[in-house]
Amino acid sequence: MTRFVLVAGTTKTARIDGISAAGADPDLVAHTPSADAELVEYGHLVRAPSLPVSPTGCPTPAAVTRAVRERVGFETLVVDAGLAEPTGAPTVGVGATPGRDIRETDPVPTAPGAWVAARELGSALPEDELVIGETIPGGTTTALGVFRALGVGSEGRGRGDAVGFPVSSSLPENPLDLKREVVDAAFEASDLTPGDAAYHPELAVRFLGDPVLATVAGLTAGALDSGTEVILGGGTQMLAAAALVRHAGVAAPLSVATTTYVAADVDMDAAAAALDCNLVVTDPGFAGRDDPLARYAAGEAKEGAGMGGALRLAERAGVTESVADGTLEVVERVNESYGP
Amino acid sequence: MTRFVLVAGTTKTARIDGISAAGADPDLVAHTPSADAELVEYGHLVRAPSLPVSPTGCPTPAAVTRAVRERVGFETLVVDAGLAEPTGAPTVGVGATPGRDIRETDPVPTAPGAWVAARELGSALPEDELVIGETIPGGTTTALGVFRALGVGSEGRGRGDAVGFPVSSSLPENPLDLKREVVDAAFEASDLTPGDAAYHPELAVRFLGDPVLATVAGLTAGALDSGTEVILGGGTQMLAAAALVRHAGVAAPLSVATTTYVAADVDMDAAAAALDCNLVVTDPGFAGRDDPLARYAAGEAKEGAGMGGALRLAERAGVTESVADGTLEVVERVNESYGP
Repeated sequence: MTRFVLVAGTTKTARIDGISAAGADPDLVAHTPSADAELVEYGHLVRAPSLPVSPTGCPTPAAVTRAVRERVGFETLVVDAGLAEPTGAPTVGVGATPGRDIRETDPVPTAPGAWVAARELGSALPEDELVIGETIPGGTTTALGVFRALGVGSEGRGRGDAVGFPVSSSLPENPLDLKREVVDAAFEASDLTPGDAAYHPELAVRFLGDPVLATVAGLTAGALDSGTEVILGGGTQMLAAAALVRHAGVAAPLSVATTTYVAADVDMDAAAAALDCNLVVTDPGFAGRDDPLARYAAGEAKEGAGMGGALRLAERAGVTESVADGTLEVVERVNESYGP
Repeated sequence: MTRFVLVAGTTKTARIDGISAAGADPDLVAHTPSADAELVEYGHLVRAPSLPVSPTGCPTPAAVTRAVRERVGFETLVVDAGLAEPTGAPTVGVGATPGRDIRETDPVPTAPGAWVAARELGSALPEDELVIGETIPGGTTTALGVFRALGVGSEGRGRGDAVGFPVSSSLPENPLDLKREVVDAAFEASDLTPGDAAYHPELAVRFLGDPVLATVAGLTAGALDSGTEVILGGGTQMLAAAALVRHAGVAAPLSVATTTYVAADVDMDAAAAALDCNLVVTDPGFAGRDDPLARYAAGEAKEGAGMGGALRLAERAGVTESVADGTLEVVERVNESYGP
């Protein structure tokens, strides 16, 4: 049996102007993880105000995950890793609260506790396979912080570097200079310098990361401890989670499943290989459409809410072909009830 | 689409000696709703310490509900209506906290708020049918309190009375005199006398009830408001919830689905008719077995965790026959992992 686990949280880091495209406007960004959780669980909104879209109207990848779920029928579990706004989705807690801005001195004080609680949870879940996804605006910035704190890879802009930090973005133009500035400021505010947190993953997530990364890493470590297979569904952030798991001394086989959009943007192969992870890349087939999903093919969103992991399950079940239409159906269903 | 909603909570009323059989010993009683939620969600325990059993070893009705789920495949939602112990099941909150002892002056201060939040939730859920169950130790005592506060029916010991309070019990010998004493003391501690809360259901649940009844009633009212069909799965407590809904002025069709064990114990027909509810009674077929399920046929447990509602779904799907073996399978699976 496979269970899809969505780890949902927020940080103040996401409020930095220009960091995140996970919302039509800045006030809606903090609602995105709560809304994503409802979409995956119900295929509808319950307490969230609107379907999350980017400023240009690209619909949330949670709609893709939901479309796959309506075809494959997997069970779900939403873990509250620091939600800031109400959700009608049922959640299990791990003691996480929303992260502060990583430029503050102790931005994620609940990270070590969340890691431990998530590890226990991951080890206790009865399924023999977990697919883990994330939804947290601003998550690639904190992932960059974690890569640098752990000293993983050499810094680079992605493709072309030996093993660069594969920091993708939900924006077509990756604001990588801004992300670097924010992470530089985070190091200044902490007592750490890059590489200081190697083999101390709890320091990396607490001072440079976010509560979602701590929770994903803890769940993964716990699941692997108990012999459960894990597929991390996502791009940059899931590689950061994998790095945290490896730096916690967990050597078991681990897969990362992402979309062609992330793989086209950054060098996932080399990074996955460096972390001893199996990489699976799936094309959702959104290219050439004349609807809002075409924005994915134009480089928006790319990943999120476990989209790459869900697509892996769709591929396994042989239903990938109907995912695009199914996603549009989810988007239209929600917009009919709530207005676009 | 049908969703099974389990409303789970606790009160200090359940700690009164002799009131509840929902636990092998008094210290485990508060864990029962948390464990029941895990059983329905996972078919396993995650954070709860052990499979809930009565003092004589009768397994929790949540194992029956889970067995049905493994055959019918319905989706679930656990609502936290005042859990006191950790659960690994994902839950959605309605602002409820554990109820105090109804002999205190304001035993369920969160009841009115939980009612409102549950009503909004019930109205927002997208399914066209909800089956609602409950798990709260001591729940038939607070149900008696609610019946009397609303002034529903005439007092009686069940079968043989015109429309008596159909107060069943998870114990083979119903401690009805003790329940009456506790409810009498609750009236003394409140400003209410029997019947005072007629058409003021929020007063009945707040001063004589429990947070689960408030939440079930709110969910039901909200679902009916939005045209969703509701089956209340349970006995005494679901009739109390139905009474609360009717006293809130909601007149829409409503069903109560219970087991033959409750129907053999108290006069459900007359009470359901008086509340303008459709009554469905299902026999899980546990009689004549030489395993722990035989205790049900001997009058233990009888109902709980939406068992009657789940059995209704099993009947509709034509799988009732395999529910008994499936239940035993769930019990054995859990005991293998955690010890009996």
